[in-house]
Amino acid sequence: MKTKPLRVALLGFGTVGSSVARILCERPELGDRLQLTHIFNRGVARKRADWVPTSVAWTDDIDVVFGAKPDVVVEVVGGVDPAGGWVRRALEQGAAVVTANKMLLAAHGPELLRLAVTNKTQLRFEAAVAGGVPLIHGVREGLAGDRLLRVAGILNGTSNFVLSTMAASSREMADVLAEAQRLGYAEADPSADVDGHDAGAKVVVLAGIAFGRHLRLADVPKRSIRPISAADFRYASRLGCTIRQIAMVDARGDGFNARVGPALVPSGSNFGLNMGANNVITIAGHYGGENSFSGAGAGGPATAVAVVSDLVSLTGRIHDQGEEWLPAKIVPPPPRPYYLRFVVRDRPGILASIAQLLAAQDINLDAVLQEPGYPKDALAFVITVEACEEAPLLAALREIESADFHAEPPLALPMLLGGE
Amino acid sequence: MKTKPLRVALLGFGTVGSSVARILCERPELGDRLQLTHIFNRGVARKRADWVPTSVAWTDDIDVVFGAKPDVVVEVVGGVDPAGGWVRRALEQGAAVVTANKMLLAAHGPELLRLAVTNKTQLRFEAAVAGGVPLIHGVREGLAGDRLLRVAGILNGTSNFVLSTMAASSREMADVLAEAQRLGYAEADPSADVDGHDAGAKVVVLAGIAFGRHLRLADVPKRSIRPISAADFRYASRLGCTIRQIAMVDARGDGFNARVGPALVPSGSNFGLNMGANNVITIAGHYGGENSFSGAGAGGPATAVAVVSDLVSLTGRIHDQGEEWLPAKIVPPPPRPYYLRFVVRDRPGILASIAQLLAAQDINLDAVLQEPGYPKDALAFVITVEACEEAPLLAALREIESADFHAEPPLALPMLLGGE
Repeated sequence: MKTKPLRVALLGFGTVGSSVARILCERPELGDRLQLTHIFNRGVARKRADWVPTSVAWTDDIDVVFGAKPDVVVEVVGGVDPAGGWVRRALEQGAAVVTANKMLLAAHGPELLRLAVTNKTQLRFEAAVAGGVPLIHGVREGLAGDRLLRVAGILNGTSNFVLSTMAASSREMADVLAEAQRLGYAEADPSADVDGHDAGAKVVVLAGIAFGRHLRLADVPKRSIRPISAADFRYASRLGCTIRQIAMVDARGDGFNARVGPALVPSGSNFGLNMGANNVITIAGHYGGENSFSGAGAGGPATAVAVVSDLVSLTGRIHDQGEEWLPAKIVPPPPRPYYLRFVVRDRPGILASIAQLLAAQDINLDAVLQEPGYPKDALAFVITVEACEEAPLLAALREIESADFHAEPPLALPMLLGGE
Repeated sequence: MKTKPLRVALLGFGTVGSSVARILCERPELGDRLQLTHIFNRGVARKRADWVPTSVAWTDDIDVVFGAKPDVVVEVVGGVDPAGGWVRRALEQGAAVVTANKMLLAAHGPELLRLAVTNKTQLRFEAAVAGGVPLIHGVREGLAGDRLLRVAGILNGTSNFVLSTMAASSREMADVLAEAQRLGYAEADPSADVDGHDAGAKVVVLAGIAFGRHLRLADVPKRSIRPISAADFRYASRLGCTIRQIAMVDARGDGFNARVGPALVPSGSNFGLNMGANNVITIAGHYGGENSFSGAGAGGPATAVAVVSDLVSLTGRIHDQGEEWLPAKIVPPPPRPYYLRFVVRDRPGILASIAQLLAAQDINLDAVLQEPGYPKDALAFVITVEACEEAPLLAALREIESADFHAEPPLALPMLLGGE
């Protein structure tokens, strides 16, 4: 059954908005379900991009957008005003809304969700928390079967960049914050990030998702990371800890405890190991224990993925249309470095003969490791080779295996050094 | 609008099945949408549990189950036969199916998915990969907006337990595997786990989810972890690496490369840091970069959460019924240890006066840390206190702050040592 595509109006063509448009334009397989019809931005003339199909109308008149009765309004303008009024207007005229606007949700979430129900439409906001990390889908759908107890995370990339850089470099806050500003990780006025307002709004959204409860942003205690000094990292490390901005909400009796601010966390924990602008979130449930999610918490393309995922979800394609697994062709792995371990009955010339058989396949050695202490009749040593195709490596190994000096069959392991 | 609850028949009352029943019975808020009507198991008499409501029919006759025309059949029997026949029969009579059966999906996924479409029903399987980790919802819905490139993970808890224990203890495989068998982490015949068949079936399911493609399980190269020795961990660590069983599939040109087996991974990577029976999965996308998920990959309650999440999702409650955020009461945090840092103009008696004010609030000191090298007029030192309520701590700090020896305001940070 072929249904008409959802007509999508995009409000805001900044970092996130332009990435949303780009994904919609670059993924033609989405085209039969989602059709970008309008792009709204102030001073739209200077925004116009030539890679957007000419079928898309550019406008800086919001009434043009609403007059076209779009099926979905994507709000990536940010801020409570005027974005909030536009979201209300969209819902009131029955359009679904996809928004990345945590501040709006923190301030008016309950009212907007009711408005969606009243108008038999939907409000989606995967992009409002932790950017590209599919946290909201994961919690709302993937953990719907659990009774959740606690959500805690590093939700502000700027603060994490500052604190993890201080920890690694022993530098002071002011110095690192200035660097973060130069690099574009922190704004000229960094208070929304370092003083916890941004993470606080995300905690409010997460409490809504995880517990169906609305905390008032003003009621969430927020402590700034500004007083943290290099001395604090030295003392924390003596306690096996480091310092991170942690945002958390947990169910306690008939209420909820929520908090944003710097805290000591074990250096070897998920939070302690989280570096740079990355986000990491841990959800604890009564039945399922702890689950963690991590990834890029901000950035145009990652946040846009979350917006487009909400759009795809609105089309109902994922489940309602069923799913198909087509046959696939298996291809060889990409070139990789390999670890080759031999256990041999030692005698002169073994290394030379192995090296020669590898060279015959154009495989370059990277390192040869041999630790002392192995017996002569079962001597273990290792050769690592530079990135190579698997086929010549296996060919070389077959030749090597046929030699008579092996005490155990050789072992070849790929080295996955890129985080695969 | 009140709809009738979905009538759920549960096939299998082992570890996972009994946990599914327990969640359905213990979470009354699910009762208006999901009603457990039948429990099927061989030799059902010895399985009967007194906490299951008397309204549930226990049977070892599969025809009784299908004769009752359930809305949803939950299949947690495992294995391709006879479970596969029951899943087919359920779909053919229009029931939705929720299954945890990776082997069945790997063998017959495409056919069963087509059968679901033909019969206008649904087949869900969040529990088939990575147990309680909401990976399938996260990928299918949360990352639907991205073009995925690669999925890689530690998907077999037994192998990870064996390898991470070998790395930590310098013991040999046979010894650690025997311990894993004693502890119940490994089966008497561990080949499905250590030789990669279990993880291979999960790779097949993940390729379906991430790429809509079906790899034949037999075509996925599987290498055993059995040849890995203590010597390999020693050599790996000289390369900054450790060894893990990695399952992966990546899109390459017009095909897919897939693989399960031991590999060297950096000791400080997500994979290298993953200990015990935990699962961790990394998804790379063209737009959103890398996202990671981690949590309990197996175990009755965690896997049951995934099953119940699929059931909740089938009720359509999550989005179709709208969402409500009710007002919440804010309560104080649980008792926690705190880190207190002071910067003082040094003089005798400061520590004593601070200790006294803490003692007056019944707060116990845990440690006092003072590093050398700070100037006398700005001497930084730290007191950690044992877990205490926040209110008396703040009261003590107010008293302490009023002293005249501070060069900077005191800083109090919670110590989140439990992974919060």
